[in-house]
Amino acid sequence: MNMNQDSLEKLKADLREFAGEREWDQFHSPKNLSMALIADAAELIEHFQWLTQEQSSNLPADKLKEVEQELADILNYVIRISDKLGIDLIEAANKKIDLNAEKYPADAVKGSAKKYSEY
Amino acid sequence: MNMNQDSLEKLKADLREFAGEREWDQFHSPKNLSMALIADAAELIEHFQWLTQEQSSNLPADKLKEVEQELADILNYVIRISDKLGIDLIEAANKKIDLNAEKYPADAVKGSAKKYSEY
Amino acid sequence: MNMNQDSLEKLKADLREFAGEREWDQFHSPKNLSMALIADAAELIEHFQWLTQEQSSNLPADKLKEVEQELADILNYVIRISDKLGIDLIEAANKKIDLNAEKYPADAVKGSAKKYSEY
Amino acid sequence: MNMNQDSLEKLKADLREFAGEREWDQFHSPKNLSMALIADAAELIEHFQWLTQEQSSNLPADKLKEVEQELADILNYVIRISDKLGIDLIEAANKKIDLNAEKYPADAVKGSAKKYSEY
Repeated sequence: MNMNQDSLEKLKADLREFAGEREWDQFHSPKNLSMALIADAAELIEHFQWLTQEQSSNLPADKLKEVEQELADILNYVIRISDKLGIDLIEAANKKIDLNAEKYPADAVKGSAKKYSEY
Repeated sequence: MNMNQDSLEKLKADLREFAGEREWDQFHSPKNLSMALIADAAELIEHFQWLTQEQSSNLPADKLKEVEQELADILNYVIRISDKLGIDLIEAANKKIDLNAEKYPADAVKGSAKKYSEY
Repeated sequence: MNMNQDSLEKLKADLREFAGEREWDQFHSPKNLSMALIADAAELIEHFQWLTQEQSSNLPADKLKEVEQELADILNYVIRISDKLGIDLIEAANKKIDLNAEKYPADAVKGSAKKYSEY
Repeated sequence: MNMNQDSLEKLKADLREFAGEREWDQFHSPKNLSMALIADAAELIEHFQWLTQEQSSNLPADKLKEVEQELADILNYVIRISDKLGIDLIEAANKKIDLNAEKYPADAVKGSAKKYSEY
């Protein structure tokens, strides 16, 4: 491995190898992977559903560790779907931030959580 | 910015600045962010829900661009929640792959999509 | 109980009593309940994520029983949120079918799964 | 239609007819329907994600109407999946309440939102 290899690139390669060794590519359609991703997003939700917002910011160590694993699962599925569809995820994420900066000009939305379409 | 800065680290910093400029940290509890994340995961699902698995692997260009944006949104929320909770996302993702390698030994699960608990 | 009481009305009353006896109304904001609902929707998804569409229509008895429980959970949360917000769920569901009939005229959409906005 | 027909039974029949007239049964595998359901569950979530719990209990009229439509969509998909799988939804919901009553005895859980496995 290249010492300077980007962290996301490395994860992409590792996940590809992981699936290959298990002959799981046959199950890894974007459709199926999007279902697996949302299942993990819901496991994340479950940790927070009965907590106040403040409690959700101050998790006990054992909960934090579980949350960490859900976030890792979600990240891995995002990388995997992007790989399957030939998407450059980092470029997409950077472009999306630029797009959001146009949609939500700092001056206009400061301190407000309204949807951009409501401005 | 450091030329060699890791892509995820840069996104984390950009997202932090984005929220700061808009005074949105008050809304960005992990609880709320997990809801925003799953909403985007569902927008991803919507693109695939009536497609066959094969169709989901061969999206027309306009759909692909929309899917790309949903994946970017999800990634950005994963990064943002991790930042809010002090989680090292890359380390977590790498650990999760190792954990999954133990749960699903290649020899035992080759070509099968059963849940690990069913072995 | 009235012998002719509608099934949904009875469930609403039972769920209200259930929460009351446990002093759970303090946790049952629509926000929290919507998170619990989607967590169960994701457990439903998990049963289907690696199956083909055909397999999802032909579940073994043990899976079917689990799916049945997830659907029950989702129904109960839909009823509960509606109750909390004073929504007449049956009326809403009937109205939504009428609305969908306008959006998707049978003649125009026959055999197609495109979103109505694409017509 | 029987004047005394149960509300859920009537919805089931209406939804069946709706899909039939549009030749949509070919798309309505439980797998696909579970994706459509969670997409609507996420649209529900979106209405609440930046609100406080209290705000989510006191929606303005226009928001309430939108929430009503999402709940209707979710209900209709729950009914539709149950129909496709031959599940008696009302019976399942009643059984689930009984099961939850065993899992969460009122005396033991009063005023606490811990998961039952944590008792």
